[in-house]
Amino acid sequence: MTLPTRPSVPGISGDRFRVHYRLAGTEAEARELADVIRVEQTVEIPADLVPDGDISDYLVGKVEAFEPIDEGHYAVTINYAIEVAGTELPQLLNILWGTGSFLNGFKVEGVDLPDSLLKYYRGPRFGPQGWREILKVYDRPLLCTAIKPMGLSAEQLADMAYKCALGGLDIIKDDHGITDLPFCSFEERVESCSEAVAKANRETGLNCLYVANVTGKVDRMVDRALFAKQAGAGALLINTAVVGFDMMRLLADDDRIALPIISHPAFAGHYVMNPDHAFSYYLYFGQLQRLAGADSSIFINYGGRFKVAREDTEGARDGCRVPMGPIKQAMPMAGGGITFPRIPELREIYDKEAIFLVGGGLHRHSDDLTENVREFLRLVS
Amino acid sequence: MTLPTRPSVPGISGDRFRVHYRLAGTEAEARELADVIRVEQTVEIPADLVPDGDISDYLVGKVEAFEPIDEGHYAVTINYAIEVAGTELPQLLNILWGTGSFLNGFKVEGVDLPDSLLKYYRGPRFGPQGWREILKVYDRPLLCTAIKPMGLSAEQLADMAYKCALGGLDIIKDDHGITDLPFCSFEERVESCSEAVAKANRETGLNCLYVANVTGKVDRMVDRALFAKQAGAGALLINTAVVGFDMMRLLADDDRIALPIISHPAFAGHYVMNPDHAFSYYLYFGQLQRLAGADSSIFINYGGRFKVAREDTEGARDGCRVPMGPIKQAMPMAGGGITFPRIPELREIYDKEAIFLVGGGLHRHSDDLTENVREFLRLVS
Repeated sequence: MTLPTRPSVPGISGDRFRVHYRLAGTEAEARELADVIRVEQTVEIPADLVPDGDISDYLVGKVEAFEPIDEGHYAVTINYAIEVAGTELPQLLNILWGTGSFLNGFKVEGVDLPDSLLKYYRGPRFGPQGWREILKVYDRPLLCTAIKPMGLSAEQLADMAYKCALGGLDIIKDDHGITDLPFCSFEERVESCSEAVAKANRETGLNCLYVANVTGKVDRMVDRALFAKQAGAGALLINTAVVGFDMMRLLADDDRIALPIISHPAFAGHYVMNPDHAFSYYLYFGQLQRLAGADSSIFINYGGRFKVAREDTEGARDGCRVPMGPIKQAMPMAGGGITFPRIPELREIYDKEAIFLVGGGLHRHSDDLTENVREFLRLVS
Repeated sequence: MTLPTRPSVPGISGDRFRVHYRLAGTEAEARELADVIRVEQTVEIPADLVPDGDISDYLVGKVEAFEPIDEGHYAVTINYAIEVAGTELPQLLNILWGTGSFLNGFKVEGVDLPDSLLKYYRGPRFGPQGWREILKVYDRPLLCTAIKPMGLSAEQLADMAYKCALGGLDIIKDDHGITDLPFCSFEERVESCSEAVAKANRETGLNCLYVANVTGKVDRMVDRALFAKQAGAGALLINTAVVGFDMMRLLADDDRIALPIISHPAFAGHYVMNPDHAFSYYLYFGQLQRLAGADSSIFINYGGRFKVAREDTEGARDGCRVPMGPIKQAMPMAGGGITFPRIPELREIYDKEAIFLVGGGLHRHSDDLTENVREFLRLVS
């Protein structure tokens, strides 16, 4: 044996956090997989080489529940010492998915984190109540649209934002693909759109927010956020899967910025689309977004152009709302195929504590964008 | 119509880049999917709403090749105006995968980027030749191991590093799960391990590199990299999928740091494991790592504890080596199940221009770690 024998590990509190998995296979395969995961995601050495003592007793995960779900699937809970997740989000993510991401039949469903671990996370700064207070809209779901397509000038995008705000839309965001582009710079767009929405607000007396997409080189994102705030943007959009959860966390934690954060799902399909691999909607679009500071998490609603199950979108909703110690909730934002006729069904799923993101549907109803917004607003009210 | 008619888009150069896809389905389905992708990944509005003129003529992708691969799969090439990818890696990633990530049967295989787009990317600072010059080892594959498991003290990890360096190992890296932990701080570990490897180098006359894992909160990573450099670390390890490609790019571009960068595959399984979704090994572990500045890209070798096809690992190898204008190659680093008996087979696949990452195998051969390293070295030489 070339490894130290029975090394002692200082500072283990005894507090542990739980990770819930859905494992695929026969019972024997799932039990073996659980045994692999608890080692793979922590010490990551062959099981027979794990040193006895503290490392084996505390740092390696412990299987605490194993129940059948259906033919070929098992619900497994493994708990881990909070110390293996350190005090930083990237390390926690690593424990959740790490090199185990290369295992088949392995899906991470959710987490239970004790306050002794959650204390390292600020979470959403605003949450649902914060959105309500900023917008002064309390009794209905909130409405959001994206200004697009890429290729329009700052003036044209601003005009679109103005017309939507005039109709009473709550939140108007840049499209996720509109960042800093040669044919429309970040600065010009953000200034024009902020001004346009402010002008509409003066006319309506409402509090519509323009949301600036600050996604870009990670060393430019804080400056973009500060520029957007200065220009009058009311919230920020981040393509979280592109720049990483911890980049969103950084912007959310920055007291100089202090604007609501909307997390966009672009680049994230592979995190949630495989029933036997990666993350559940609940964890990915709910719990993890909140840990990383999202005040609202956009996800793909079922029934639109993408194949998504209703239970998945309900999972995203629940992950945005489930109690997580002192961490605020996030507003679930359902996007993709949100059309006027679907409003009653959406109200049933999300109740009023959600944001409906409508895209193409808003342009189709009639030739008058402002009137289309008003019609949509009547339907949700 | 509520959108501007025939808007003009200034500054379109006419230069385009190609993206190669593998689409699943019948021919009709794959053709329809290609048509969806070229719109979804750019303007992202319903096809019937795309404005005529410059947006339709230039910004939407153009299908330029469509060939059958096998029953149910088609090789499709779509080209895009370089301007839609802007000048930043996150935007390029967004065009490659974006909201299309929620489509089924959609895998991105590779890219051809013209110099007019590549000029925004520095790529690897060192590349294979840089590794050779630093290590002064020219005639054989390079050997790397990881010090672990988590839970060992800085002193114990440093002792392990010392023994490996004494045996002549080229590169000794922190395990991907060893970051800044309550029971072993980043600073203490990096100082101890740097000193241990320097001591061994003085004894051997060799140039073994200690590689510090600087993964953590993104706003701490530059400081960690500078600390590691100051302490004597010879290279940096980054869990790229956890912190995002552009965070690696930031560290690679920083002239104050100027150390070789090794990209670790933890958290990346879902990027490459689905044959009909997300990315190929070639693109993910090759081309994209190079665009983001990795001097070496670790990937899972076939035949180990993870189910990986030989052709996938060959893809990673080729993606590290394929010409990409002025962008340097990356050293492919094959890990996972690298054992002494497999050396001849690995030599055949990778030739000498690769790094072999050996973990458990190095501890099993005998009770003398230094002697095990020497034996491994004899086998590859």
